[in-house]
Parts: sequence; C-alpha cells; structure tokens
Amino acid sequence: MAADWVTRFTVGDDYLWDTLLLPFDAVATAAHAEGLVDAGVLDLDELRAVKAALGRIKRKAEAGEVGVTPEDEDCHTVIERYLTAELGEIGEKIHTGRSRNDQVLAALRLFLRDRLITIARATSEIVEMLCGVAEEYDDALMPGYTHMQLAMPTTAGLWAAGYAELLVTDIRAVRAAHDQINTSPLGSAAGYGVPHLKLLRKKVAKTLGFKEVQSNVTAVQLSRGKLELHVAHACVQIGATLNRMASDLVLFNTSEFGFVRLPEEYTTGSSIMPQKRNPDVLELARAVYHRLTAEMHVLASVPANLPSGYHRDLQLTKAAVMQSVL
Amino acid sequence: MAADWVTRFTVGDDYLWDTLLLPFDAVATAAHAEGLVDAGVLDLDELRAVKAALGRIKRKAEAGEVGVTPEDEDCHTVIERYLTAELGEIGEKIHTGRSRNDQVLAALRLFLRDRLITIARATSEIVEMLCGVAEEYDDALMPGYTHMQLAMPTTAGLWAAGYAELLVTDIRAVRAAHDQINTSPLGSAAGYGVPHLKLLRKKVAKTLGFKEVQSNVTAVQLSRGKLELHVAHACVQIGATLNRMASDLVLFNTSEFGFVRLPEEYTTGSSIMPQKRNPDVLELARAVYHRLTAEMHVLASVPANLPSGYHRDLQLTKAAVMQSVL
Amino acid sequence: MAADWVTRFTVGDDYLWDTLLLPFDAVATAAHAEGLVDAGVLDLDELRAVKAALGRIKRKAEAGEVGVTPEDEDCHTVIERYLTAELGEIGEKIHTGRSRNDQVLAALRLFLRDRLITIARATSEIVEMLCGVAEEYDDALMPGYTHMQLAMPTTAGLWAAGYAELLVTDIRAVRAAHDQINTSPLGSAAGYGVPHLKLLRKKVAKTLGFKEVQSNVTAVQLSRGKLELHVAHACVQIGATLNRMASDLVLFNTSEFGFVRLPEEYTTGSSIMPQKRNPDVLELARAVYHRLTAEMHVLASVPANLPSGYHRDLQLTKAAVMQSVL
Amino acid sequence: MAADWVTRFTVGDDYLWDTLLLPFDAVATAAHAEGLVDAGVLDLDELRAVKAALGRIKRKAEAGEVGVTPEDEDCHTVIERYLTAELGEIGEKIHTGRSRNDQVLAALRLFLRDRLITIARATSEIVEMLCGVAEEYDDALMPGYTHMQLAMPTTAGLWAAGYAELLVTDIRAVRAAHDQINTSPLGSAAGYGVPHLKLLRKKVAKTLGFKEVQSNVTAVQLSRGKLELHVAHACVQIGATLNRMASDLVLFNTSEFGFVRLPEEYTTGSSIMPQKRNPDVLELARAVYHRLTAEMHVLASVPANLPSGYHRDLQLTKAAVMQSVL
Repeated sequence: MAADWVTRFTVGDDYLWDTLLLPFDAVATAAHAEGLVDAGVLDLDELRAVKAALGRIKRKAEAGEVGVTPEDEDCHTVIERYLTAELGEIGEKIHTGRSRNDQVLAALRLFLRDRLITIARATSEIVEMLCGVAEEYDDALMPGYTHMQLAMPTTAGLWAAGYAELLVTDIRAVRAAHDQINTSPLGSAAGYGVPHLKLLRKKVAKTLGFKEVQSNVTAVQLSRGKLELHVAHACVQIGATLNRMASDLVLFNTSEFGFVRLPEEYTTGSSIMPQKRNPDVLELARAVYHRLTAEMHVLASVPANLPSGYHRDLQLTKAAVMQSVL
Repeated sequence: MAADWVTRFTVGDDYLWDTLLLPFDAVATAAHAEGLVDAGVLDLDELRAVKAALGRIKRKAEAGEVGVTPEDEDCHTVIERYLTAELGEIGEKIHTGRSRNDQVLAALRLFLRDRLITIARATSEIVEMLCGVAEEYDDALMPGYTHMQLAMPTTAGLWAAGYAELLVTDIRAVRAAHDQINTSPLGSAAGYGVPHLKLLRKKVAKTLGFKEVQSNVTAVQLSRGKLELHVAHACVQIGATLNRMASDLVLFNTSEFGFVRLPEEYTTGSSIMPQKRNPDVLELARAVYHRLTAEMHVLASVPANLPSGYHRDLQLTKAAVMQSVL
Repeated sequence: MAADWVTRFTVGDDYLWDTLLLPFDAVATAAHAEGLVDAGVLDLDELRAVKAALGRIKRKAEAGEVGVTPEDEDCHTVIERYLTAELGEIGEKIHTGRSRNDQVLAALRLFLRDRLITIARATSEIVEMLCGVAEEYDDALMPGYTHMQLAMPTTAGLWAAGYAELLVTDIRAVRAAHDQINTSPLGSAAGYGVPHLKLLRKKVAKTLGFKEVQSNVTAVQLSRGKLELHVAHACVQIGATLNRMASDLVLFNTSEFGFVRLPEEYTTGSSIMPQKRNPDVLELARAVYHRLTAEMHVLASVPANLPSGYHRDLQLTKAAVMQSVL
Repeated sequence: MAADWVTRFTVGDDYLWDTLLLPFDAVATAAHAEGLVDAGVLDLDELRAVKAALGRIKRKAEAGEVGVTPEDEDCHTVIERYLTAELGEIGEKIHTGRSRNDQVLAALRLFLRDRLITIARATSEIVEMLCGVAEEYDDALMPGYTHMQLAMPTTAGLWAAGYAELLVTDIRAVRAAHDQINTSPLGSAAGYGVPHLKLLRKKVAKTLGFKEVQSNVTAVQLSRGKLELHVAHACVQIGATLNRMASDLVLFNTSEFGFVRLPEEYTTGSSIMPQKRNPDVLELARAVYHRLTAEMHVLASVPANLPSGYHRDLQLTKAAVMQSVL
C-alpha cells in the first residue's frame, strides 16, 4: 500500500519474471523480423543483422550475462535498446507492426510451452520411478485403509502404481494445456490488429512452432488469464497428486505407522533430538500445492467482471502463471 | 453448526443430487449385473429380470415418479430396495462385487459425461449464434478500447467473433474433461478391489461406453476431486467467457455507451421507472461465474493434505461438481 | 446453463433462503411501519393493525405454516400480499419509503445477528466441554509431535485446552463480525435514499436493536459482500479450529495411534467389518470447512471489479453468507 | 518443480522476507534476553552487552547495512551469528528457552503489528481526503445508477463520502486483526513449552507490548495461519473498498461517462495516441485486490486437514501474510 514498498517488491518481482522471458522474447522478435521482411519493412540484409544481434542477446540472457534490471521497464525495452545500440535505425523498425501487448504474450507462451514440456518430462520420470517401486514391492503387504481405519490388505506396489496412474492422467492435462496455449498472438497488436501492414500471421506462427493463430485479434486480450488458467490447472493436477503422495509418506514415516524410512539426506534432524527424521521436503511438497491453487485463483479472478479490451490489471496474470510452472 | 439445520439443508441437498443420479445408477447397475453373469453370480434369467426392473426404475426416475427422499440414505438404497421388493433374493445379489464407493462414482461419471455433452452442444449453439451476429454486423463500426479508453476503430462483428473463437477453445476444454472422466471405477470396490471374484472390468466398462478402466484400484479413490476438477475447470472456462461477454453487454447497454439495446423480454423494469432496462439476466450470468470458481475451489481443497484411502470428506465433492454442470 | 435446470435449482434454493428470512422481514417491516408513522404515512390505528398482522405472519413462518414458494418472487412479496389481503390499502402503503434493496438487507442482517449469537453460544459450549476434558485429562500423558515425529511429552489435557483457547479467540471474531453487520440499511432505499420523505433512520434502527445506521446511503449497496465477508470470516475461523481438531481425532482414532476411542454412536460401521469405527461425523466436520472457505470466496469475488450501485450479481451474496452460518 | 528453480526463487524470496523481520527479531530477542535474566541464565552485565549488540544489528538492519542472504538459513541465524561473533559464549546462551518456532512468530507478529498501524494510518488519510472531496463536491450533481442504468440524481460528494464510510469500517477490521495477533508466543518453544526453565512469559510479553500471552503452548502452532488470516482479512476488506473505488474511477474516466479527469501524472499515455489517459495506477489498485484474496486463500488452506503440532508446511504462511501487508 505504501508507494515505496510497492516499488521495491512489485517492480522488483516483475523484472525477475521478465529476465526469464528475455530469451523467449528474442526468439519471438526474430520471427517477427522475418514477418517484417514479408511486409516490406525490413530487407534481407537488415533481417540478417537483426537475427544475429537477437542471437547474441539470447545467448547472453541464457548465460545470465544480460538481464532486466528494476530500471528497465520490461524485457521488450532491453531488447529494443540493445538492437538500437547495435544496429541504429534498423533496431527501431522492429517495433513496427506489434505492440507490447502481443509481444509479451508471444514470449510468455513460448516460455510456458517450454516449461510444460519440462514439467511433463519430470513427471514422466516420477512415473517411471514409481513403476520401479511398484515392481519391487509387488509382494510387500501393507494395510489398506478406509476412513483411516484398517480395511483390507494391499501392497506397497499397488500403492506406488496408484500414484503412477494418476500422474499419467496429469500428463494428459499438461498436454491439453500445452495445446491450448500453443497459439500465436502475434499480429494482434493491442487487440485491434495492424490494419495498414500486410503481416503473414500464419507464417510467423509456424516459424515459432505455434500450432495455430488466434485469428480473431480481439480474442487475444480476452484470452489473458483464461489460457494461463489451463496451464495453472495442469500444474494444480500434478500438485494435487504429489500433495496426496507426500501426505501418505509423512504419515507412513511416523513411528506409529512406520511403513517407510526416509533416507537421511531427505530429512532434517534437530540438534536436541538427533534421532528425529523430519520430513521437511515432503511437507514443503505438500504445502506448495496451496500456492499453486492460489495462483490459479488469481488467474481466474483478475479478469473477471471486466469488459473486453486490454486493462493493466492483466499484467498480474503473468507472474501468477509463471509462479505456477517454476 | 446446529444439528437440525445441518440435517434440514445438507441431507436435503444430498437427496436432490442423488435423485439426479438415480437413472445413471440404474444404467451402471445393469452393466454390473452383466458382469455378475460373467463372474457366475447371476444366471441369464436373473440378469433379464434385473435389467427389466432397472429399466422400469430408470423410466420412473426420468419421469419424476421415483426419487430419493430425505429418509432414503442415497440413490443406491432406493435401487436396492426396489430390486429386492420386485425380485427378492436376486435383488440382494446385485451388491456382490461392488461397494457404494465405486457405485456412486460410476453413476456420477455417467451423469457428468451426459452433462458435458449437453454443455458442449449448448456452447456450440452460442458459437453459431455469435457467428451469425459476426456476419450480420461485419461492417458495423464500433470503438475499440484499451484501458477503457478509445483506442482504435473496430466492428461489432469482430467483437462477436472474438467470443465465438474463445468458446471454441472452451469446447476443447470440455472435451478434455470428458475424456478424463470417461474412465470406469467399477470393480475397484472400496479402493482395494474384489479379490475373490473374477470381474471382467474392461467388458463392464465397454458396456457403459467408458473409454478405459481405472486399472489401479487405489487410484480410484485418490482421483476423487481431481477428476471432478477437470470438469469444474472446463465449466469455469465457459463461465469466464460468458462473464466477460456479459460484462461487455451490461456496459454497452448503458445510456452512456448505448451500443446495444437489450430486448424487453430479457430485461426487468421498475414500477417507478418503466423506461429502465435492467439487464438482470446478464448480471446473473456474470455472477454465476464466481459460484463456478467456488465449486472448483471446493474440489481442489477437500481432498488436499489427506492420506490415501476413502474418507467421508470426499462426499462433498459430489455436490460441488454437480453444481458446476447444472 | 440449461434454463430449466437453472430454474429448478437456483430459484428453488432462493425460496428456501427467503423462507428463513421471512420472520426477520416481518420484524423489520414492523419497525419500518413505525417510521412511517413519524413520516406521516400511517396513523397509529393503521400501525396497530399492521403490527398485529406482521406478528401473525411471523408466528406462522416460525411454525412453518407460511413459507416462500417457488412461485413467490421473494419473502417481501409474501409479506406485502399478506398485508394487502388482510388490510387492503394499508398493506400497500407499507412499501412507501423503502426498496427491496434495503428491505432484504435489513432482514438478512437481523437473521445473521441472530445466527452469530447462536454460533457464539454453541462455540462457548464446546469451549466449556473442552475445559472439562482438559481438567479430567490433566495428567494423561500423550506424546507431543513436530513434523508428526515424536518430540516431547505432553498431556491430553493440554491438547484439549489448546483448542479451547483457540475457540475463545474465534468467539472474538464472531463478536467483531456481529458488530460490523449490526448496522441499519433502512432508509437507503435503492442506494440513493428517500428524498421526499422524512424518515427517522436512527429511531428505526434503534427499534431493531441496530447499534448504528449506515448513514451514507450509497455505502449500503457498496457494503454488500463486504459486510457478509466479516461473517464468513468468523465462521471460517471456527471452522478452521474444528477442522484441525477433527484431523487430530481422526488420526488419534486410528489403531496405530489409538489415543482415543470414539463412542459407537458417533461412528459408522460396515456390514462386512463390524469392528471398524469409521469417524464419518469428524470427517464431515473436517470437510465442511472447505465449503465455508468457498462461500467466503464467493463473497469476496462477486462484487469485485464492479462499479458502485446495485447490480443483480449481489443477490448471490445472500445465499453464500446464509450457507456460512447454518 | 525443478530443484534449481525452487532454490533460486523460493529460498530467494524467503531471505527477503527474513530481511524485513530482522529488526523485529532483534527487539524480540532483547526481550527474551531480559527473560533469561529472570530465569537465571544471563546476568545483568551479560544482558547489557546483549542488548547493546542487538541495538546495533537492529540499526544496521534498518539502515539496510545488514540483511539475510540466500546463504543464511534465516534471520535467527544472522542474529545468533552476530551475537556469537561479538560476545562469544554469551551470544550462544541466547537460544536457551526458545525454539525457531516461537522466535519467528514473535518477530512476525511485531512486524505485522507495525504494518497494521501503518495501514490504519494510511487508510485514515484516504478517509480524510475523501471527506475533503465530499465537502467540496457536496453540490456537484451526478447520476445515481442501479444495474448501471440511470436511476436517481446523486452528488459527487455523496459518492466520496460513501467510500469514506466504508473505509472507516475497514479500519475497525484492522483494529480487530491487530488485537488478535497482539499476543505473545514466546515461551511456547516448539509447541510444548520449556519445562525446565522458569520463564516469566507475561513479563516478556509486556516488555514487547503484547496485550496478552498465548498461554496454552500447543495453541501457538495451531494458531499459525489462523491468526495471520485475521490480518489478511482486514487487508482484503480495505482492498475490496479500493477495488470498487478504482472500478468507479476507471469507468468515470471514460470519454462516455466523463465524470472525472485524472491528473496527467497518474495516467500513462501512448506514443501513438498522446491524448489517451490510461488509468494504469487505478487498474493496478483494482487488480492487486485479487492478489490479496489469493494470499488469504493460502493462509486458509495450508494448515487445513493437518493434525496439530508444527509442520514445515506452515512456513508458507509467513510469506503469504507478509505479502498481504506490504
């Protein structure tokens, strides 16, 4: 509420998020530059120079040598300033035919696409690990509970396989989210298109590997929050499975249940009671689920009850979805 | 908190929800009966009698002649009592090889599948309607806004087409949710299977049109809330689109904007000010979105932090998801 | 989404909520009638007749003999129709100087005030019960846990006293909520007051036991959702304490922990396993907390991002807060 | 989900939050040191040395010269290391009779108390400003709306006074939250007290200005999330009022409504359309409300369904409540 706090934290956060977007913004900008050749704004020599410069800034960003500082407005400013410093007037032309509004979404969606693939892979690895456990403990008897009361015998293998099966359905949700966001906003500008420029939107989208184009330009800003909500939903699904698995393991790790013994490197002790094996990692895995549902809530709430067209409110959806996929 | 209130409202609600599930429970029970033939529990004559009786109760339930009353425990009790009254001992056999836990999920998923198809169709009709508007008002100039400030000229047709495009992506979400819940829980019983009975789970699933079986029996109870959350998510997506469209129309219906004039039958007046055209229907369409996100919240929260196995807590997910699809 | 469903359930619900408001609406209407005497609209004989008729409908409503049916629009209609049927023209005059907007809020706040007092009393009884347990089990050793790992010895008495102490702070929250809603909306009409009538707002408020008047008439509609959120917050606090206490008892009731043995009448068994003591009541107590947070979410979300003035959206806050206090 | 990301961001955040707590931890540690004199652990000379050192680290922390780095575990480590470096063995004694669990809560509550007072003052200033507007525009006619339709004439002064009245009730909520958190956790250690040490808990609490002591030691960890939820609730109430006021101003700033003209320094323009006055600040004020409700959601959800006793999950409540009061 106090202005200096707002600045220190809010802006502070935003530049970190934009630092993560920087390499993806460079890639999207290169594709946009190709589009500007088709539109007659850049010639091929200029394109070559622009792409080379963007390649350099991308590599620097990935190596952590260039970032967005609190003084920079956003990642777009950093790129434009870099291009202008390196290439002069050519660098300035790059903003033709786009607005910050479609530019940030292009970078964000490339980032999310990338993260979702990483998340799907990491989840697959957990599935494989659980399948290994399922095989190994196929015969290991364990009580089955309903209402936390002993009900029927089951096995540790079946327990592990259950979570594996859930995670497989969660990966489907990741794929569905990936398909939903894999659509190009470029060419929509501030939500009303670029009337006086012949942009080949589909071609640019294809260059970036987008499966399709959001062909209706007003739909792009209307989809903010909504598309990101698909991503948050998929993360919530994975988070929900891991939340339950962690809950089980914390319980099974008690001396009363005693079904599992966590490896020492995954537990913390206590100076006074060295025999304790506190399952901090599992507890944090369990707790982080609620952070994911909170970000889902932000994505569902910020755009609600608002008329169409861009509003600055929508900026808050960026951090919310990015926090969901970290 | 006071017991009599809890009874009057909570139970009251639950019997209404179960009344809606009754026809679907009858269908699932018929498929289960076929499975009991394969398992050697029923013979073909008994199956024929059971299916005929289930057909009768289904028709009566659809016609509103039979329902679940507050005195009945749930829809399963109603069906069992009916079968026992009609068929005696045969009717009692029907509970062999299943538990209320998988029975309610089978009925619920059939119900949700049915509702999602209806919702997808209704949404398609809105898309078509919006496409009609888009064509008709293709040339109707309208201001385009950013930050609710006049930005660029656009058309009413583009406005309508934007919402149509969003709803098309929402229908994809409905399809994804449909695919996720289209999986058979039958044969998982209370979460640990039916060891001493040879149930052909895939065959029963196929009879009911389920795309697959939740093959891991412990995964079934673990998926409660999670699978329903896919459904709620899809409904939230449609709700979000309609929320924004309603927000636009309420604004456009003001005398200050004046872009639309709502038909009298969709507005309410005021005895004192008959010239007013209050957009109550749009306001309720806008508001209902928040009820949908609240049900999503219930589905995401109730199972969180709980160990695996059935808990009575999970019963609350039934009403939450059913309210989402009405 | 389908119109007939919406009607069957949404309207269905609303008439039930309004049935609960009916006696409180009668009380508020009587106070308003007194105000109309001061404003010169009714004379003392008319007032006497009106109050007698309102007393009758209140008693009938409390006895369950009169209610709001789906055909009635709301509880206000029922009261007006009754007064008009009994008293003719006098009954019609009663609507002078108020609107449905302030009328429903007056009834709702009287209802909430009443419920909060009941809730505070019921909570106090739990506190006393827990204090009894604390004394009785003062010496009963029990392990104390951190991270669900054995940490230090504690006593069952200390355990019970901890929850008692929390509930005492929760009762403070109930009192704070009570104070916030204990403010009279009457005289604000549809949010812009009753310019041509001399209503003694403070006197009417005092008659109804309201601590103060919402003196700014536009603040009344702006406070919808907000004031109710205080009530939901208090209920969430109590719900949170009971959620944790129920979680403990479910765990302590396991055969592995075995600290408590629930009385048979509070558990359910299973026909197959009669020795099981399923803690359904505790599980539902635990789960209902998430319904409370969902209603809190509705109250926080429905009015958000909307300009001032009454919107039909706000109607949804009524059911949300009423569900919170049942 | 990937470990390095988790480290970079999660830990990253936590050290920033702990940097804010550092001065408050120093104050709480000084009071604890006084208590250790009464308990016979420190003598008066040692106390003097400890308090002097704590005074120095507090001033350095406030001046931004000392902070918590990602390498430090938390603010408690920083203080202990500083005291040990300056005072040797005396510095080590300071951890006697407390645990990180009560230490962090003492610092956090002092911080929250401080922030709530600042927030209440800032809100009072807005109230005064609005009262000024109310007086100045007492006669400025403005349309009053219901359903966003013209309903009755009102004034700009009444509009401003309405928000002032709401904020006054919000300040009450801040006071209620302040009273709830103004209770000392010191002496509860990890939730089971400090059996072998005679700590004068009330005296230490009084030194720190706490109104009372959480006398039941197990109640302290059980109150995590709950007490913070009071704080979040108060912030949500203020946020809700400002959300509606901002929504009004964004609408009134449109060229269609045109009731207000925002000062240029509070709006952003556009290079292409310099005449536009984009109300970014208002839009962000409106949007930040949804971040506040999300943090409230985290506080309500993280501890739910968990048995009593400290769990690492509860750590997430710290950042959630601190984000609410910035």
